[in-house]
Amino acid sequence: MDNSNNILLKNVTLLSQLSEEERKNAILGATMPSIESLEKIVELVKRIIFPGFFDSKLTNDDTRYYYIGVNMEELFSLLKTQLKSEEKTISFIERIPELKRILYTDINAMFHSDPAVTALSEIIFCYPFVQAMLHYRVAHELLLLGVPIIPRIITEMAHSKTGIDIHPGAQIGEYFCIDHGTGVVIGETCIIGNHVMLYQGVTLGAKSFTFDDNGTPLNTPRHPIIEDNVTIYSNSSVLGRITIGHDTIIGGNVWLTNNVPPFSKILQSKAVATTFTDGAGI
Amino acid sequence: MDNSNNILLKNVTLLSQLSEEERKNAILGATMPSIESLEKIVELVKRIIFPGFFDSKLTNDDTRYYYIGVNMEELFSLLKTQLKSEEKTISFIERIPELKRILYTDINAMFHSDPAVTALSEIIFCYPFVQAMLHYRVAHELLLLGVPIIPRIITEMAHSKTGIDIHPGAQIGEYFCIDHGTGVVIGETCIIGNHVMLYQGVTLGAKSFTFDDNGTPLNTPRHPIIEDNVTIYSNSSVLGRITIGHDTIIGGNVWLTNNVPPFSKILQSKAVATTFTDGAGI
Amino acid sequence: MDNSNNILLKNVTLLSQLSEEERKNAILGATMPSIESLEKIVELVKRIIFPGFFDSKLTNDDTRYYYIGVNMEELFSLLKTQLKSEEKTISFIERIPELKRILYTDINAMFHSDPAVTALSEIIFCYPFVQAMLHYRVAHELLLLGVPIIPRIITEMAHSKTGIDIHPGAQIGEYFCIDHGTGVVIGETCIIGNHVMLYQGVTLGAKSFTFDDNGTPLNTPRHPIIEDNVTIYSNSSVLGRITIGHDTIIGGNVWLTNNVPPFSKILQSKAVATTFTDGAGI
Amino acid sequence: MDNSNNILLKNVTLLSQLSEEERKNAILGATMPSIESLEKIVELVKRIIFPGFFDSKLTNDDTRYYYIGVNMEELFSLLKTQLKSEEKTISFIERIPELKRILYTDINAMFHSDPAVTALSEIIFCYPFVQAMLHYRVAHELLLLGVPIIPRIITEMAHSKTGIDIHPGAQIGEYFCIDHGTGVVIGETCIIGNHVMLYQGVTLGAKSFTFDDNGTPLNTPRHPIIEDNVTIYSNSSVLGRITIGHDTIIGGNVWLTNNVPPFSKILQSKAVATTFTDGAGI
Amino acid sequence: MDNSNNILLKNVTLLSQLSEEERKNAILGATMPSIESLEKIVELVKRIIFPGFFDSKLTNDDTRYYYIGVNMEELFSLLKTQLKSEEKTISFIERIPELKRILYTDINAMFHSDPAVTALSEIIFCYPFVQAMLHYRVAHELLLLGVPIIPRIITEMAHSKTGIDIHPGAQIGEYFCIDHGTGVVIGETCIIGNHVMLYQGVTLGAKSFTFDDNGTPLNTPRHPIIEDNVTIYSNSSVLGRITIGHDTIIGGNVWLTNNVPPFSKILQSKAVATTFTDGAGI
Amino acid sequence: MDNSNNILLKNVTLLSQLSEEERKNAILGATMPSIESLEKIVELVKRIIFPGFFDSKLTNDDTRYYYIGVNMEELFSLLKTQLKSEEKTISFIERIPELKRILYTDINAMFHSDPAVTALSEIIFCYPFVQAMLHYRVAHELLLLGVPIIPRIITEMAHSKTGIDIHPGAQIGEYFCIDHGTGVVIGETCIIGNHVMLYQGVTLGAKSFTFDDNGTPLNTPRHPIIEDNVTIYSNSSVLGRITIGHDTIIGGNVWLTNNVPPFSKILQSKAVATTFTDGAGI
Repeated sequence: MDNSNNILLKNVTLLSQLSEEERKNAILGATMPSIESLEKIVELVKRIIFPGFFDSKLTNDDTRYYYIGVNMEELFSLLKTQLKSEEKTISFIERIPELKRILYTDINAMFHSDPAVTALSEIIFCYPFVQAMLHYRVAHELLLLGVPIIPRIITEMAHSKTGIDIHPGAQIGEYFCIDHGTGVVIGETCIIGNHVMLYQGVTLGAKSFTFDDNGTPLNTPRHPIIEDNVTIYSNSSVLGRITIGHDTIIGGNVWLTNNVPPFSKILQSKAVATTFTDGAGI
Repeated sequence: MDNSNNILLKNVTLLSQLSEEERKNAILGATMPSIESLEKIVELVKRIIFPGFFDSKLTNDDTRYYYIGVNMEELFSLLKTQLKSEEKTISFIERIPELKRILYTDINAMFHSDPAVTALSEIIFCYPFVQAMLHYRVAHELLLLGVPIIPRIITEMAHSKTGIDIHPGAQIGEYFCIDHGTGVVIGETCIIGNHVMLYQGVTLGAKSFTFDDNGTPLNTPRHPIIEDNVTIYSNSSVLGRITIGHDTIIGGNVWLTNNVPPFSKILQSKAVATTFTDGAGI
Repeated sequence: MDNSNNILLKNVTLLSQLSEEERKNAILGATMPSIESLEKIVELVKRIIFPGFFDSKLTNDDTRYYYIGVNMEELFSLLKTQLKSEEKTISFIERIPELKRILYTDINAMFHSDPAVTALSEIIFCYPFVQAMLHYRVAHELLLLGVPIIPRIITEMAHSKTGIDIHPGAQIGEYFCIDHGTGVVIGETCIIGNHVMLYQGVTLGAKSFTFDDNGTPLNTPRHPIIEDNVTIYSNSSVLGRITIGHDTIIGGNVWLTNNVPPFSKILQSKAVATTFTDGAGI
Repeated sequence: MDNSNNILLKNVTLLSQLSEEERKNAILGATMPSIESLEKIVELVKRIIFPGFFDSKLTNDDTRYYYIGVNMEELFSLLKTQLKSEEKTISFIERIPELKRILYTDINAMFHSDPAVTALSEIIFCYPFVQAMLHYRVAHELLLLGVPIIPRIITEMAHSKTGIDIHPGAQIGEYFCIDHGTGVVIGETCIIGNHVMLYQGVTLGAKSFTFDDNGTPLNTPRHPIIEDNVTIYSNSSVLGRITIGHDTIIGGNVWLTNNVPPFSKILQSKAVATTFTDGAGI
Repeated sequence: MDNSNNILLKNVTLLSQLSEEERKNAILGATMPSIESLEKIVELVKRIIFPGFFDSKLTNDDTRYYYIGVNMEELFSLLKTQLKSEEKTISFIERIPELKRILYTDINAMFHSDPAVTALSEIIFCYPFVQAMLHYRVAHELLLLGVPIIPRIITEMAHSKTGIDIHPGAQIGEYFCIDHGTGVVIGETCIIGNHVMLYQGVTLGAKSFTFDDNGTPLNTPRHPIIEDNVTIYSNSSVLGRITIGHDTIIGGNVWLTNNVPPFSKILQSKAVATTFTDGAGI
Repeated sequence: MDNSNNILLKNVTLLSQLSEEERKNAILGATMPSIESLEKIVELVKRIIFPGFFDSKLTNDDTRYYYIGVNMEELFSLLKTQLKSEEKTISFIERIPELKRILYTDINAMFHSDPAVTALSEIIFCYPFVQAMLHYRVAHELLLLGVPIIPRIITEMAHSKTGIDIHPGAQIGEYFCIDHGTGVVIGETCIIGNHVMLYQGVTLGAKSFTFDDNGTPLNTPRHPIIEDNVTIYSNSSVLGRITIGHDTIIGGNVWLTNNVPPFSKILQSKAVATTFTDGAGI
């Protein structure tokens, strides 16, 4: 016990002394938002936009009003604390009906793309893509209001639950749809049109960065522009500030770093097929 | 505060009025299953099938009987409430010993495929693939009993935790095995034989849909048939109602939309290698 | 109710009788570590290494000492119970300052690779990669101390949350960095140098196994060696005991099973582009 | 372990076999109300009657409406389940405004009787007597609606928290007040007028019972009638179907089993005082 | 902040240094039983003795066995940890059927004494006296097994909830009954016969103590002996090693420090009654 | 449902409209302290004063410092929020060592008065009197600092748990001791010397009030003064601004409203004893 006590005490002392680098971060860290509050905030927006789905109680026409009122009141209070600005909080709340309208375009797009689904309510209730889009669209609104860090935390919450990683800075049109979704990455400076469909594992990423004189990477447009009516199949990587023209299909597992004109089809070059003559290996 | 109150009140009123589209969904939403109960249900099946692993207490031969009895009783009660059918509940419970038998074939398949593992119990205790298969096999049984929506919710639970997305409608044989698993997608009409092994990121998906006259996609067979003894390496996309013949190996990162005869090997066409002569870019 | 009772009772009896195979596993299962404790253990290490970030309270220079002391004391107590060895617990605690130093190299590497980030604290607070590396580096230390199973459980916790699956046995250098991360797999016998960067969906895996006479796969070196200053883009699969030479870039969606010399660039062979002349299919 | 197992198994078997007496009770027991729901029900009534006091949020004139609406909706739902009658639930809810009016008379009575109090809100917020009266008045309404058992459970909840034991059958007028309260007992057939004040430890109880031929005690009027403007000091026992006339004061520690005319003062006969001449005893 | 920091730091240091007196107590304190476990232990005994009353589920003849089995197993495990003795744990468990038999005598006594009650199950479900007797009878058994401190903690739990304070050392016969109960105190060396009934506020206490040469009070018989068929009304104090003869009634608010022969009735001397001629005072 | 909806809606509207009386109270109510925080505050003081007793971990000489530091830090933060004053918070914290000293005098007094106790630690760990005194002494300090309402809430917490109701304004000396305690009431203007012992059910209360012209009772000295070395037995009521002289014993069940000189013994006048000649009644 003596030895263990010595090492414990020594390391407690050692680890309590911050370096200059840590000291700076520790101060920032201490003022970080409350993840618990942010989760509650997104949950409240979800309950306001989809009344009756996630509340524990059936709400009829009379009582729905009470529930949305209470949820709105708590949203207002929690969000104001996190944003430290009543003005931004009000601006966000003003946008909720529009958020609802856009999310319904996404849900309708999925309804018309998935033969397995039987009702809109099934999509709302159990598709991870709805979670991801709700988080992204809330986060994007907050980013437009100039809120720092919080938008990124909100999309990371969806990333952890759904495997879909959308940077809140990305610009995404209506009737957007991601099927299955695990592994999808959409970068900060992406611009995506309407009626775009992505499958799992698709990356819309950066190919390379520009650095300043100190070696710090510069935040310049570096992710793709995807025009209207584009479908990208599973696991393809579309990188760099390129443009994928409208009405295009990109097959799966493609590595794509150049512009594509409208009405294109892009497929991986054909796989090599042999039969077994040499044992079990590949 | 006045202004904020006005906007809150206005939006509460606005968002309390449902459109026709929402009204229809809201009714369905209100009768949605309890996710909390479904999580408990799968947990109880897990404790019944793997006694002593996830209960907080060591159960010896005498007392195991009590624990399985209580778990079975609670499973019966919770499931009956969710299925709204005692008959289907009983039918499901009758199938549990068979579910256990099949899950053990999956676990044994993994045991013989992973050099890193030292005991069956290690697989049961910490491999995400066991979680995913437990959820899928429970959900598939419920689907066969004609239960709506709930099977899909159950597989989405596993999807969120493991990144493995198996549609409950897929038909999967014995000694099935998924290593690592993140990003795996197995579509609704897949038929998979015995002794099949998938690696992370593999998609067994649809290539295209057939639509009815209203533009609604038709739920027809549209996913691959994988015969016995097939291995598919990481990130490959196998799409459409094609057949992958038995005793075949498909390498990683392949885009495959055509039939493959038995005893095949399919590899991506060879990558292009250069050395650096032109700076850091790719 | 009679029938349901009969089937319940029958299956309770049936499922209470263990096969020989299960009996062996049940014993192991009953002595499995507490997942709840292991989650608390990693959380405590995180709070000790990044004081002020995840504690609910701002800790100033005087009071930080109290918090780290309490966290260290609880870490000691929980870890000793799980490891069943005070000696190994002490050895682990001795390593925490070194763990902190290395994690800061990883965080700095990310800071210099992501134009979207504005401060180290943002990375610490919300990047899933930090979670994954914290879990891996803790697990790797425990593996070096000869602790069974627990290291694997710890990395699976990170796998579930981040989609990043790093085997605790892998050897990973300093200034390591994974962006986005979902779908990354790093195998047990990988050896990774310094300043290596991986993107989402990258597999550093095994190509094939060697079996002993009983058909049990042998645990031999079977995963890649990645030298210093290598970047691998999204979704590529690098398999087998091959060496990727230093200062190399591997593009995305590549299937790579052979050695690569230093200063290489490896890209997928060019995709096939057409325009639409034949309807919507691919 | 063998011996312990034997005794455990033997007693499990023994205790699982119910006697006839138990069997009858077990059936009743199984349909007992949910104590958790009843606690929530009283809490909801409290929040409806005293808005802004026990909700976590300040409710202004606009938003109070939402909170009371949600609380009323949940009260309706929980109470209907416990009462197994929508009609009785509605009847109870109709009475809430009257309950509120009467409770405010009690609170005002206390305000004018306790020099230590500075505001009505202090009484509402922290006097155990308010808890006790809220529980009693709710329970009494339910009793009047013919609800079995539940009223008694509700007053026992207050008994446990405050030490005040009021039978739900007692009839208690307005401007009623109990100070401190621990040990107060008010029996089932008590009739209490307006402006009555009790101190801690006062019993309004039965002196004796009438039995039927089987020795079962008969539920006849057996507790006191207390007329208007009566004060009873601490620890007095007032027993039997006697009448305490209006405008009477009863001192503390009195044993009283006979009628008392109006405008009386009743005191314990004077205590015997000596000084010490014989050591420490009494 | 500087000043506040100084005082915090100073007091942390000061309060961390234990006096000799504290040091001795701290050691004992650290090995104190777990109150949380003891609460669970009594709860388990309650569920075993009254199956179907406090479990959330109706248990029929088949499944009751499972529930009692699991509860017994958990009782065994928790109790063994707290008692630090398997032998004493087994001895206690052996006594449970006898505990059940005696508790039913108490419940039956109440049933025949309270005109307000309609069924045994109502007493079991909501009378605080049952809680108090369960705790006391469990604690008394543990005391007989030589277990230190724990019995006292268990009766204090009931004291806090019911206001009934029974020392675990008291000896109490069958068909014992306490109505309402708040304020009842039964001292360590009391001996109580069968068919005894106490009302709220009754004290069976010590009148004076004998001290040793160091001034430490000696633990000698110092509380009353109550023979069979005695009833004591509310708030009476019966003190010292006196005997209350069988078939006696003691009225309320009596101070009694001498022996009472069988078949006695003891009443407070008559109260003094006046009418008001001199204002509001008493 | 229609009717039920109508009544719900009507009552929601009705109950949302506050009377003037309520409006005033609602505003006060909304700024009421957090009961949850106050409970945590008293708990932290308890852990600081009795280290090692109520923390889940044994703290040795080295690590006790960490725990007290963290507890002090959290106390400071919570208390500052509740008191809305850093200055008062610091003043309270400065007093903790003195609070500890006085509480130990109370505990020692109990140790020398109760033959059933075997160690100081048993008193600290399980005597309700310690809880009551801790709450009172904390509340009294806060009252001296001019904190409104909170002191009263704190003593009511102890009242609910222990049945002991001490007004925070009472002045209580050292070596004070309450045995059993249920039903004890100590009024706001009491002054109690050293070495005073009370038994359960003792009231030190007011006899009558003085009113101002509006009928509001005036807060004047109205409770007893108890000098040093006084013992008062169970259930006695001592009322009014009288003085009980030092070295006095007051027996149980006494009604006392006049001064008592030092060295007195006061007993209830002797009870009336008869034997049964007239049936079961009293």
